[in-house]
Amino acid sequence: AGDAEAGKGKAAICAACHGADGKTLIPGYPNLNGQNEQYLVYALKAYKNKERNGGNAMLMQAQAAMLSDTDIDNLAAYFSQM
Amino acid sequence: AGDAEAGKGKAAICAACHGADGKTLIPGYPNLNGQNEQYLVYALKAYKNKERNGGNAMLMQAQAAMLSDTDIDNLAAYFSQM
Repeated sequence: AGDAEAGKGKAAICAACHGADGKTLIPGYPNLNGQNEQYLVYALKAYKNKERNGGNAMLMQAQAAMLSDTDIDNLAAYFSQM
Repeated sequence: AGDAEAGKGKAAICAACHGADGKTLIPGYPNLNGQNEQYLVYALKAYKNKERNGGNAMLMQAQAAMLSDTDIDNLAAYFSQM
């Protein structure tokens, strides 16, 4: 599993849309708080690998492209323990 | 917005993986309880339109293909109010 503390350090950008508490500020965007850790890793990698397309996916592809696999593990650990 | 009561009637299949309380029984699958309603509609339609691919997406594409847009609205209403 990832390092939630390290994830917290990377989460500022995410919080802009998903909320500092992981509860989305923007309807149509998912809440992340308490989400399943492995699912968050899977979803971020799906965006990173451009397996998710259409609509909002374009924005998330750009975000995920900036993340290393370690960042992804740490962010998943951070939001899942919220 | 959808009809949560009608959504409940369609949710048995979903509950098999996502849990009757919306908390996933299978690591790597998302929790649905309290998720943003519009996001759930968006995600189900992304599976239905095959905009989400790879890994688990194949299974969800098959599930979403069986749902009408009204079913999708109702399921989103149901799980988001959990």
